[in-house]
Amino acid sequence: MSSTRTHQRPSRSKDGQPGHKLLAIPGPVEVSDNVLTALARPPISHVSPEFAGIFQQALLLSRKVVGSQYGQPFIVAGSGTLGWDQVGANLVERGDKVLVLNTGYFGDGFKDCLLSYGAQVTTLKAPAPGETVPLSSIESALAGQNYKLITITHVDTSTGVLSDIRSIAELIKKVSPSTLIVLDAVCSVGCEEIKMDIWGLDIVLTASQKAIGAPPGLSILVASQRAVKTYSTRKTPVQGYYASWKKWLPIMESYLVAKPAYFGTQPVNLVYALTEALSDLMKGGEEGLAARIEAHKKAAGRLRAVAAQLGMKSLAVKGAEAAGLSAVWVPEGLTAAEILQRAGAKGIVFAGGLLANVKDRYIRIGHMGISVTDGGRGDIERISEVLRTAIGELLKEKQSETTT
Amino acid sequence: MSSTRTHQRPSRSKDGQPGHKLLAIPGPVEVSDNVLTALARPPISHVSPEFAGIFQQALLLSRKVVGSQYGQPFIVAGSGTLGWDQVGANLVERGDKVLVLNTGYFGDGFKDCLLSYGAQVTTLKAPAPGETVPLSSIESALAGQNYKLITITHVDTSTGVLSDIRSIAELIKKVSPSTLIVLDAVCSVGCEEIKMDIWGLDIVLTASQKAIGAPPGLSILVASQRAVKTYSTRKTPVQGYYASWKKWLPIMESYLVAKPAYFGTQPVNLVYALTEALSDLMKGGEEGLAARIEAHKKAAGRLRAVAAQLGMKSLAVKGAEAAGLSAVWVPEGLTAAEILQRAGAKGIVFAGGLLANVKDRYIRIGHMGISVTDGGRGDIERISEVLRTAIGELLKEKQSETTT
Repeated sequence: MSSTRTHQRPSRSKDGQPGHKLLAIPGPVEVSDNVLTALARPPISHVSPEFAGIFQQALLLSRKVVGSQYGQPFIVAGSGTLGWDQVGANLVERGDKVLVLNTGYFGDGFKDCLLSYGAQVTTLKAPAPGETVPLSSIESALAGQNYKLITITHVDTSTGVLSDIRSIAELIKKVSPSTLIVLDAVCSVGCEEIKMDIWGLDIVLTASQKAIGAPPGLSILVASQRAVKTYSTRKTPVQGYYASWKKWLPIMESYLVAKPAYFGTQPVNLVYALTEALSDLMKGGEEGLAARIEAHKKAAGRLRAVAAQLGMKSLAVKGAEAAGLSAVWVPEGLTAAEILQRAGAKGIVFAGGLLANVKDRYIRIGHMGISVTDGGRGDIERISEVLRTAIGELLKEKQSETTT
Repeated sequence: MSSTRTHQRPSRSKDGQPGHKLLAIPGPVEVSDNVLTALARPPISHVSPEFAGIFQQALLLSRKVVGSQYGQPFIVAGSGTLGWDQVGANLVERGDKVLVLNTGYFGDGFKDCLLSYGAQVTTLKAPAPGETVPLSSIESALAGQNYKLITITHVDTSTGVLSDIRSIAELIKKVSPSTLIVLDAVCSVGCEEIKMDIWGLDIVLTASQKAIGAPPGLSILVASQRAVKTYSTRKTPVQGYYASWKKWLPIMESYLVAKPAYFGTQPVNLVYALTEALSDLMKGGEEGLAARIEAHKKAAGRLRAVAAQLGMKSLAVKGAEAAGLSAVWVPEGLTAAEILQRAGAKGIVFAGGLLANVKDRYIRIGHMGISVTDGGRGDIERISEVLRTAIGELLKEKQSETTT
């Protein structure tokens, strides 16, 4: 695909137009010029051979980026949430027992979704915000229960907590091998290590707008052959229509061999952008991907060191800190809203808290995609600098308020 | 929004790159430069005030374009099909009686979708391909049945058949006033008259990539207050999650007053493009929209006159021909595949048939959006010319095959 740089970049306009603020939120992220250029290509027919080739590439690359050789990829117009529905609609039959590991807001969401498909859900919640679910709790929960599936949020975007999928999967394989392992990897694909085949994951679901670096609007999911078999041997009909693999599986199988097929018009422009973004991600092969993940870890470390100097501790406990975002407590006396506003005035967009009780007590800083991998942009430096000055100014103002 | 023309247009490249073929299919359609430029703007936060303003505009304009003042709009990442799921998930409870009017492939699809939500579906099929369902049949079908809802495909994209919604709605109001009227307007919003409030429609659902003139990837739906009440007073829980108004209604209500809210990340770039496209559509107000619809009718008439001269009759019977697409039988001795290929070689993309039994016996020509409204492009002339020469050449070749 082309990588010319001809489109409009409000971020760089100097003509007095409102400038583009740098996105330092956990998705959508900054999107590269070549991905935006791909996005803006005129639509072509969703059943043309040309589109079939592009879509095939996207499907094949989706597999690669999650470490799967033969998994069945699905790419469907929708937000990341639609991935949850694909799991609920196709893998759950009413009354099925499901174990949901919860490390934040998105664990609640996945549970709600599965309940709406009739699952009998047991939740295992991390002991406190920022913590992970201990392996020992998972082991006891699984003992003698025969859950049909277990869901794990790889990185909960509300808390920045990273779960240790390799160890959890290993444990499940040992104590409950028939349980399907479902990974919500919306905030981890492209910035955390994922070895779908090696770890024996059954579902890896994600979205286009985080570390993959494309605009939002695509649900991306890869299913193991075991998951596809669970779907194809279900006793009751799939629930619903738009999320149904009965409809999408033949379509995706067809596009996997670059043969057009029709169920619902594919969002061709978003697929252009996704294919371009995934090509960038995988252009260095597995090694390139590993280096990219390493770069995210490093950037995260640098940013969190800055935050720590400012007295902003991570929500996530040591060893469970995500590479793509940092959730940090705000300094005593300040609110998240104040910090967001001040940073915004300085051209950087941070995100507020998402956990109901402590919403205004922490902020979330996204560091994914080209902000990390394209060092020439200087995004991480700019984010650090703005964080430093914003907090510095606010603390000084509070101090002078108190003293006067 | 900006309307500068700075992005790449492969269609106009003269550097030996493969040229962009003109889309004369019933969606996706040709997209204007300003809409593509809007699409390619860097993403902003889906919960920023700036995005809230843009999304609010899209919601308000969605109402206007279907002729509703107080209907509740929903704009969600997905294909047009997701609109069917919104109806099934939110308005249908298991066992509810539904009447589906069928004028082609998309009537079958809507039925399948509603069945997957447990509806008890009765289908009223047009007597033959190209015909509409007679009012008298609808009247008998409704008599004493008390259907919860009736679905009508405004223009079935598989046949180019236009249903007379005004008369059907009038009849329903008379004989079964409590039945909700659901209009599948995927292939009609922006190119056929729709008066949601005046005609008393309860659901108008559509997608972004047809006569609205944006890229594919958005499900757009407007619900009457009566439909919202039917949803909010249902006795059983909504089925599924991603299509659930329990989740989306508060979000859409919030964005209607330009207040950000979160459930699933909005596809911000597609929303930029939709807002731009809807603004273009409505910039002349109701009169402008009426003139636009008139222009589509005229273009359709011109194209069908050319087809008729070539011996290609419409599938749709007189009075039931759509303004946005024409389905025409191929001349004796030719196949749809041959015509598509020849037209493709001449730079125009037509679509094949979609009705199972006669797939290769007809072609579909889309004439929507800027191909119709931007006369300076000369698209209709080019489409006519290519149709003429392609058919002429093919017939001559067949003839020489026979005579040698």
